[in-house]
Amino acid sequence: MSISATARDIAKNATVVDQLQSLLESDLTAVETLLKARAASPVDIIPDLSQYIVTAGGKRLRPIITLAAAHAVGKAKSSTHALAAAVEFIHTATLLHDDVVDESDLRRGKPAAKSVWGNSASILVGDFLFARAFTLMVDTGSLEILGILSNASSVIAEGEVRQLAAQGKLDLPTEDYLAIIEAKTAALFEAASRAGALSGGSSEHADALASYGKNLGLAFQIVDDVLDYGGTTSVIGKVVGDDFREGKVTLPVIIARRRGKTEDHAFWARALNVETQEESDLARAIHLIRTTGAAEATIAEAEAYAGLAKSALADLPDTQWKSLLGQLADFCVKRAH
Amino acid sequence: MSISATARDIAKNATVVDQLQSLLESDLTAVETLLKARAASPVDIIPDLSQYIVTAGGKRLRPIITLAAAHAVGKAKSSTHALAAAVEFIHTATLLHDDVVDESDLRRGKPAAKSVWGNSASILVGDFLFARAFTLMVDTGSLEILGILSNASSVIAEGEVRQLAAQGKLDLPTEDYLAIIEAKTAALFEAASRAGALSGGSSEHADALASYGKNLGLAFQIVDDVLDYGGTTSVIGKVVGDDFREGKVTLPVIIARRRGKTEDHAFWARALNVETQEESDLARAIHLIRTTGAAEATIAEAEAYAGLAKSALADLPDTQWKSLLGQLADFCVKRAH
Repeated sequence: MSISATARDIAKNATVVDQLQSLLESDLTAVETLLKARAASPVDIIPDLSQYIVTAGGKRLRPIITLAAAHAVGKAKSSTHALAAAVEFIHTATLLHDDVVDESDLRRGKPAAKSVWGNSASILVGDFLFARAFTLMVDTGSLEILGILSNASSVIAEGEVRQLAAQGKLDLPTEDYLAIIEAKTAALFEAASRAGALSGGSSEHADALASYGKNLGLAFQIVDDVLDYGGTTSVIGKVVGDDFREGKVTLPVIIARRRGKTEDHAFWARALNVETQEESDLARAIHLIRTTGAAEATIAEAEAYAGLAKSALADLPDTQWKSLLGQLADFCVKRAH
Repeated sequence: MSISATARDIAKNATVVDQLQSLLESDLTAVETLLKARAASPVDIIPDLSQYIVTAGGKRLRPIITLAAAHAVGKAKSSTHALAAAVEFIHTATLLHDDVVDESDLRRGKPAAKSVWGNSASILVGDFLFARAFTLMVDTGSLEILGILSNASSVIAEGEVRQLAAQGKLDLPTEDYLAIIEAKTAALFEAASRAGALSGGSSEHADALASYGKNLGLAFQIVDDVLDYGGTTSVIGKVVGDDFREGKVTLPVIIARRRGKTEDHAFWARALNVETQEESDLARAIHLIRTTGAAEATIAEAEAYAGLAKSALADLPDTQWKSLLGQLADFCVKRAH
């Protein structure tokens, strides 16, 4: 399939998220109120730092999925709002800790919270938001939901540790890469979808929505990883190369290296070692990822997971939610083009 | 009262903890089994790092309090074991993050986990154990207990942030110091005692045991803070000066500075600024804390809280547990002598 997006595609894609945000307007307003109220603290740094990252231009993708999953099988209630806010807090806490772990100075083009308030404050406010996420989940009144999200939280941490151990490991098997992103990213999408369905009032489709969430999360992260190298064309204004500079071995690199010549192997070995990496290496890495077709192959992998996400929805009641969740899976992949 | 411990006191004190450990032997064995089982992960760094810190010579004071609170009003059940393990995991997670925040190379005289595995692994394994603590609490089947511990967890993080903001703040009011240690230390003792009582089967004495835990935690931390300056006499083999080197303004410093001469003020200002601190400053700080009587005054403050802890137990059923919890409060203070 074509890898360049037409203007019509872009307009259509924007509409999926717009439509979801519009349909979920009252739910999302309730979630925003909770995000603000539950980050409150007499210790100023906490709400300041929290608001900085919580309002840093995130699309609220995880709350949207949580709420839409509830609507797809029943109805979002006030307990669903608490759940959606909890999911966003868990996500925010992991971002704060990731920035410290990855030594990233920027997050979505803005200085990372740790660049403004320091590593210590980022670690501790992450802990605070994580704890508040659990208080929010207690408000849902469901031990089952607490079990799902506490389990997902330990899986996320496990994935992050595994990613840390895989840093610079050039022969990382694709399966290990997928296991890492399934844990660090897809587990929260999966938990949000499953818990959203349960919170919406039905356990009948909880497994299906969990599968949707997991595959969507995989597609989402694979696309993120190829976008870090500019996708198939450089995206102007998009900061690229973070993963590369951190020596993260992601799918575009795995494929480019596998398809590359012997001299490329030596290049990857030197360039993905943060000690020996040179300024000009990123441009060559991008060149190799493009010329070996690794970018397209990576996107094809993401498309496969997006397809699995859509298939998982097959038995859901035919509502606009089912349709929009399906379109959302496409949207997650199309942003790579 | 006398500030030097007699041999008889020491023997008696050792017996309190020994007695509790002996009486709680089967409960503590169950807790240890959970601590090991729930730190399990296919990602080797996680159990390795967890076991390193979980078995690093801690006395299991928080699990002991949790279990004893349950027995004091009812009986420790398997859900109490899960709770006690959860409390220890929360404590362990905060230690891992504290070592990164405080840049401490040692913990209980051994290299800190972060000195062995690095900051990133310490942050992420802390997150993992924190998540596993919540999974353990889901196993207790009590939303009330989850609410108590999730709230305590956010209060702990709040206290740590507040402590961070107070670093080097020489005019820190005593009330602010107490608010910090109440949050960062006493909140977990309080939550463990309250939740322990509820888990034991009675809400009747939960407030009393919560008050016991809070005051015990305050006494415990105040004693820790004076021990960091060697107490009233240097303790051989005890590493001192960590707080001082980090510019932490604790009660012995607040009192010594308040009672000191003008030239001492200038000394404290320079010495508690980590940028201008000199090697020989710790010895002078210890000297000033002793000669102004700040060490004794600090211990007297701890004794007052230990007294409040014991008073809180007044209406509890007269059992050996009530007696031992009372003696434990004395023990926490006596280690300062």
